[in-house]
Amino acid sequence: MALVAKRMAVVGVGLIGGSLAGAARQAGAVERVVGIGRTRGNLETALQRGLIDEIGNGPAAVSGVDLVVLAVPLGSLIETAQRLRPHIGPGTLITDVGSVKAAVVASLTQVFSTACPFVGAHPIAGTERSGARFADPDMFRGARCVVTPGVSAPESAVRRVERLWEAVGAEVLRMSPEEHDRVLAWTSHLGHVVAFALARGLAREGAGRVVAAGPSLRDMTRVAASSPELWADVLMANRSALLEALDEFAQDVGHLRRALERGDERTVRAWLDKGRGGRRLLEDS
Amino acid sequence: MALVAKRMAVVGVGLIGGSLAGAARQAGAVERVVGIGRTRGNLETALQRGLIDEIGNGPAAVSGVDLVVLAVPLGSLIETAQRLRPHIGPGTLITDVGSVKAAVVASLTQVFSTACPFVGAHPIAGTERSGARFADPDMFRGARCVVTPGVSAPESAVRRVERLWEAVGAEVLRMSPEEHDRVLAWTSHLGHVVAFALARGLAREGAGRVVAAGPSLRDMTRVAASSPELWADVLMANRSALLEALDEFAQDVGHLRRALERGDERTVRAWLDKGRGGRRLLEDS
Repeated sequence: MALVAKRMAVVGVGLIGGSLAGAARQAGAVERVVGIGRTRGNLETALQRGLIDEIGNGPAAVSGVDLVVLAVPLGSLIETAQRLRPHIGPGTLITDVGSVKAAVVASLTQVFSTACPFVGAHPIAGTERSGARFADPDMFRGARCVVTPGVSAPESAVRRVERLWEAVGAEVLRMSPEEHDRVLAWTSHLGHVVAFALARGLAREGAGRVVAAGPSLRDMTRVAASSPELWADVLMANRSALLEALDEFAQDVGHLRRALERGDERTVRAWLDKGRGGRRLLEDS
Repeated sequence: MALVAKRMAVVGVGLIGGSLAGAARQAGAVERVVGIGRTRGNLETALQRGLIDEIGNGPAAVSGVDLVVLAVPLGSLIETAQRLRPHIGPGTLITDVGSVKAAVVASLTQVFSTACPFVGAHPIAGTERSGARFADPDMFRGARCVVTPGVSAPESAVRRVERLWEAVGAEVLRMSPEEHDRVLAWTSHLGHVVAFALARGLAREGAGRVVAAGPSLRDMTRVAASSPELWADVLMANRSALLEALDEFAQDVGHLRRALERGDERTVRAWLDKGRGGRRLLEDS
C-alpha cells in the first residue's frame, strides 16, 4: 500500500471521521493520525479504540500535517475550515466527507485558495448512530465513495484523495459537485425525508400504528433515528435539488394514486412492476 | 401446549402458510397438517422441509380437518374459499392470513355462513420472498398478529385462532377489520408504495442513481422486491384507506417542502425531530 499521507489530521472524530481514521491507519495509508475535536471524551474514546494516534490540541494541531480531513457536521464545516486555515501549511491537501457538495466545494475552494488544494469527497456509508464509539474501520469496505473535485482542483490532489478511499476499501466514483447533489438528492436525501415522514405518522396516531408496525416499516424508518440537527443541515444545504426530487417523487406517487382511485389494477401492477425492476438494478449493482 | 386442532389444512403453502404450518407442528398446537396448493413442486418442498405431514389431493382434502387456514394470495382468496366450501364439514374453524381484512371478512363470513365460523387474522411478518423454500417456522416468534373477528364470529372461535398464533410465538392484537385496514394502510401499504416509488426513481435515471445508492436506500427499497401481482391485489383491496394514508403523507411532506422552499431551517429541524420521536416509539414498542 503506497502511503497517501505521513501525518493526517481528522477534524471531527465521529462516526465517519473516526471510521476513516481507523481504516486509514489499519490500511497503512497514513503513518500517523491526529484527532481534533470539541468533545474531549469522544477523542479519548477514539484514542482508546486505536482509531487515532494522538489527540490534537486545538486548531494549531493541523500545522505540520500533510492531509486534513474535515469530518465535522455540515453546518459547522465552513466555520471550522476558516478557524483552521491560518494554521495549515502551504501544499497541505484538504478534503471533507460531507453529504452535500456544490456549495461546500465552492466555499472551501475559496477558503483554502490555491495554497492548499481542496478536493471534496462523500463516502456513501454510515448508520443512524454518531460518535467515535460507533466508528468501524471496516465501514467503507465495499462501499462507494464519491469524489467531487471542483474545476480548479489539481489532478494529482484528486488522485491522492481517491487513493485514500481506495486504501480503505471503497469503490471510488468521480462526479462533479452538482451531479453529486442531484443524484444524492434522490438516493439519500429524499429517502431520509420519506423515512422521517413515515415515522411522523407513527407519532401522530399514538400507539395504534406503532404496535402494528412490522419488519418493513422498521427498515424503512431506521434512518429516522438520525440526528435532526445534522439532517436539517443536509436538507437545507441541498434544498434546490431536493425540491426537484420531492416533486418528481410526488408526481410519480400521484400516478399510482389516480390509478387506485379509478380502480385500474392493471396500471397499479405495471407501476409496481417497474419499481421491482429498479430494485433489481440495485441488487445487481 | 393445549391442542388448537387435531388436523389442520393449510391452503397455499407459501412463505406465510408454510411458516405457520411448520411453526404449529413444532409447537404441538396441531397433530397433523395437510398442505393443499396448486404447485406440486412447492408442496413437495414443504413436505421435505417438514412443514407439513401430507400433501392433500385437491379441494376434497379439507374434509375431515377441524381447522382450515387460507394462505393463498389475496386475489384468489374468495374464489379458493368458494371452491373449498362444499368439502368442509360443519363446525370447522376457518381463518386466513391476508394483509387486508374488511372486504375479506365480510365476503368469507358470507361464504361460510354460520355453519363454519370464520375469523380473519393477519400476521405482521414476512419478507419480500415467496414460496415454501423460504418459509421459516420461527418467523412469528416475537411478531405481532392482528386477529380481526367480524361481528358475528363466536368468541370461542376467536379465542381458538388467537391461541394458534400465541402458540407459534406471536403477540396477538385484536382489532375490527376496518380498524386493521386503516392502521395497516399507514404501517404497511403506504410504506410499500413509498419503497416501490423510490425504486422506480432508480430505474428512471439508469445507472447514475443506482451506483450512488447506500445502505439507507437499500433498506428502504427492500420490499420493492416483493411480487407486484400480490401487492397490486393488496393495494387495490385496501384502496380507500390507502388513499387517505397517501393524502396524509403528501400533506405532511408538503409542510416540509414549503419550509425548505422558504429556507426555514427551524421548521425543518422541528419536523425531523418529531419523526425521530415516532421512530423512538417504534424502538420502545
